[in-house]
Order: sequence, then C-alpha cells, then structure tokens
Amino acid sequence: MDRNAPIGVFDSGIGGLTVAREIIRQMPNERMVYFGDTARLPYGSKSQDTVIRYSRQIIRFLKTQNVKAIVIACNTATACALEAVKEDLDIPIIGVINAGVRTAVNSTRNGKIGVIGTAATIRSDVYTKELKKLRADLEIIGKPCPLFVPLVEEGLWHDTVTDEIASRYLSCLKGKYIDTLVMGCTHYPLLRSTFRRVMGDEVTLVNPAYETAIELKALLEENGLSCTENPGEDQYHFFVSDQAENFTNFATAILPNEIQETKQINIEEY
Amino acid sequence: MDRNAPIGVFDSGIGGLTVAREIIRQMPNERMVYFGDTARLPYGSKSQDTVIRYSRQIIRFLKTQNVKAIVIACNTATACALEAVKEDLDIPIIGVINAGVRTAVNSTRNGKIGVIGTAATIRSDVYTKELKKLRADLEIIGKPCPLFVPLVEEGLWHDTVTDEIASRYLSCLKGKYIDTLVMGCTHYPLLRSTFRRVMGDEVTLVNPAYETAIELKALLEENGLSCTENPGEDQYHFFVSDQAENFTNFATAILPNEIQETKQINIEEY
Repeated sequence: MDRNAPIGVFDSGIGGLTVAREIIRQMPNERMVYFGDTARLPYGSKSQDTVIRYSRQIIRFLKTQNVKAIVIACNTATACALEAVKEDLDIPIIGVINAGVRTAVNSTRNGKIGVIGTAATIRSDVYTKELKKLRADLEIIGKPCPLFVPLVEEGLWHDTVTDEIASRYLSCLKGKYIDTLVMGCTHYPLLRSTFRRVMGDEVTLVNPAYETAIELKALLEENGLSCTENPGEDQYHFFVSDQAENFTNFATAILPNEIQETKQINIEEY
Repeated sequence: MDRNAPIGVFDSGIGGLTVAREIIRQMPNERMVYFGDTARLPYGSKSQDTVIRYSRQIIRFLKTQNVKAIVIACNTATACALEAVKEDLDIPIIGVINAGVRTAVNSTRNGKIGVIGTAATIRSDVYTKELKKLRADLEIIGKPCPLFVPLVEEGLWHDTVTDEIASRYLSCLKGKYIDTLVMGCTHYPLLRSTFRRVMGDEVTLVNPAYETAIELKALLEENGLSCTENPGEDQYHFFVSDQAENFTNFATAILPNEIQETKQINIEEY
C-alpha cells in the first residue's frame, strides 16, 4: 500500500465535512478523497440493510481512487454498516463512533452521558452498547433530534429557532443531570455554540469529528501509512452523487480552504 | 384496460398521502396502490435526471400492479419528470401541478400569486411557467421552504416553531400583497392552519391535493375508467422502499381509514 495515497472519507452528504475539516487541520499533508451521497441522503431515516448496501457501493468507488484507509464520517453509516463492511476490506477502516465513545468515558465524572443523533443512530443503540463495553455502570440517555440536520442545512447555525428546538430536545438530558454530551451526528459540531448555551458550561461536549481525526492519525502511524511527501496542489478531491454545486458552496463554508470543484458520479454503478 | 383496476399513486414518501386522502374522500369506491419512495426521499434536493430515473422505476413497479391510471402525488417529481415519463406510457398519468395552477388562476383577483415548495420545485420554475401559460400578465412569487417537510415529519403541525418559520418564509410573499398562495408541496396541506394564520383570511390557499383528486375523477369518467364494482376489503395497498412501520403510523394519522399493512420492496430492481 502506497503511504502517499489519499485517505477516503464518506458521508451521506455534507455532515462528514466536519470530519474532513479536522483531518485537514490535524494532518495538513495528507491527501483526501471525499464522497457525499447527496442523491440518497439522509441515511438517518433508512434501514440498516439499505445503509449497508449503500456503504458497500461507496467503498467500491473509493477503492477505484486507490485510497489507503477509509473513514466513515457518518454516524448512521458507522452504526449500521462499519462491522459488516470491515469483514471484506483489506485496508484500515474506522467510523466516527469509537473515538467519541472513548473520550466520553474518560470525561464523565458522574457516569451520566447524553447522546444526541438522528433517529436511526439513536434507534440502533450503538452508542449505548459501545459506551457500556468500556464501562458497564454508565447511565446513557439517547435522544433523537431529527430537526438539527435540516436546520444546519438551512444555514440556521446561530438562530433563535435552533435555540428553541435545541432547548426542547435537550431538556430531557438536562433533567437527568448528564455531565457529558456526545454530538452523535456529524452535522452537530456546527451547532456547538447553541448546545453550549443550552447545556451550560458544566457539561462536556464531545465532538467525535475531532476525536476521530486523532484516532486516524494514530492508526496511520501504527500502520506505516502516514504521508511522507508534499501533496502538491491536487490534494483534495470531492465527489457527490447529486447537486455538485450546492456541495461546493457548503464545503467552502465549512472547510479551511476554498473548494475548486466537486465531481458528480452515479454511485449506483459501483 | 379494466375499469375496476386500481389507481396508482406515488410520492417520494408520505407527502402524497394528502393526495391519497382526497382520492379516498372523493372516490370512495376506487381501488388504490400507493408507493412511497422512503429509501430515497427527499426528492426535493435531487437533480432532474435523478428524479426522472426514480420515477421510471416506480412506474414500472406500479404497472406490475395493473394500475389503470397514475397520479404523481409529488410536486418535485411532477415538475421534473411528468413530461418525460408521459411519452412512453399507455395509461393516463397526471401530476399535482396542473389542477392547482388552474384553480390559482381562477382564484386571483389582483394577479399576484405566491407559490411555496421545496428548493427543487421552486428552482424548476414549473409553477411560474404553467401559471403564465394560462395568463401571461400574472406576477408569480416563488419561495422555497426547505424546513416545512422536516417540521411536518417531526409532527409539529401546530407549533410555535412552525409558526415562526412560516412567518419568516412567508413574509416576502405578504410584502408583495399576493392574494392567492399555492401550497406547492404535498406535505403543506398539513400546515394549512398555520399558513391561514400567517397570511390572513384575505389570501386564498390553493390545495393541489384536493384539486388533483377532482381532476382525476373527471379524467377517469372521460376515459370510461371509473370503477363500477364494490371494491371489497382489499381496497388499498401501500408499498414503500424502506421503513414500512413508520409509514404505516404516518398513513394512519393522515388517512380516514386505519392502515393494516405496508409492504417494503426493493425499488431499484424495477
């Protein structure tokens, strides 16, 4: 495996860009190929079988780009598909759940952890299972928050309506006196300041995007896969299954660099 | 063609149920096969090519159910795909746009009509084009309202947050003194009371679901396709591409009858 090959990152759409952003910040020399499944988003309302089928198609596409490792930058796809797709893959693959789980367990003092995410992520109970594997006596309170993704995508990152919806969604978590809140959807770091305001300074916000980039860096080092050459100009490639122009605008708003181009592919061919 | 065969109705998900509801109310003897493309919703963020491809798959499926006529109960699919799919079809097919357009033109007194819908419907400009075909001097103000669908699907049909979002979306239409507002998305009739409150009693709300059922009834009569026998117990069949149970709950909330069963199919096989 070529250590200077790109990292493959995928998500159902734009949310995974918060993970891509952390990878760019923490590993500025690494190349990256990002795929956003914008034709078939959101994954949060889909069944496990469907999400596994979609993830397999995307991984087949990323392999055509010679990626050296893959990050599933999507909580729903990690929850539904990581274990299934890992089996038949010959390169390292990580999701966005493990790193956040480890950080949450290390952060909590009172053992009460809240998890927010899409309906599918919370329904899958993956955070509860993974957190309890590390510490069985934890009390985990999961809360599905289906409106946060459309609010982020409508640009209401700092808005009274988002505050109101957040107050409603998070009130049950405040009532349980959690001291740690896992942002279990990749869109959610963009609403961090709202969560901070609603939850107060006492609660630790865990950002799995940030933690996952740290995990990826260690994984590449362990496997002798860290990039050693200057990536040059052609460092980042973005692909989507639909609406390339919208994606480019959103990516430019989220990432540190301006995005020149997003290519559209027919993912169902893979 | 068997006049006692079912009517085929499809949508990207649950929104088309407002059209199904009107068909059930206005033609209580007709059989119906409904397909909701819940695995691939929402169509509103997808490109025209993608929506045409999906619509063709669904029509192939509905033909396996021997439908005698098809209603595209989805504004996005009507806007993007009706003309394209009509060409190669041997049974009557209508969308949800024409009937609403005719009613809006007949209703307006000052010639200023507002249209609300998903980003794709408004971007397609289909309402403006169709309205101006009937009356060239109309002033049409289109407004994309991406949050209404998730608000409806979160059950916030009567809620202060929905009121606030509606006030923001609709303020530009109020400022233009429209006297007629077309609800250009099949979810929106469920927010009718909010629109009524925000827009005031002076503005006529056009519900294309209601108007489309009237158009369908006339079309069946013209073509000698109105049902003549008692439909018996097995009158309605519901199919989705994902999340059958959620769909059943939603359909039961919207339709006059309780839904017994929703079958899940793999629409990509058609």
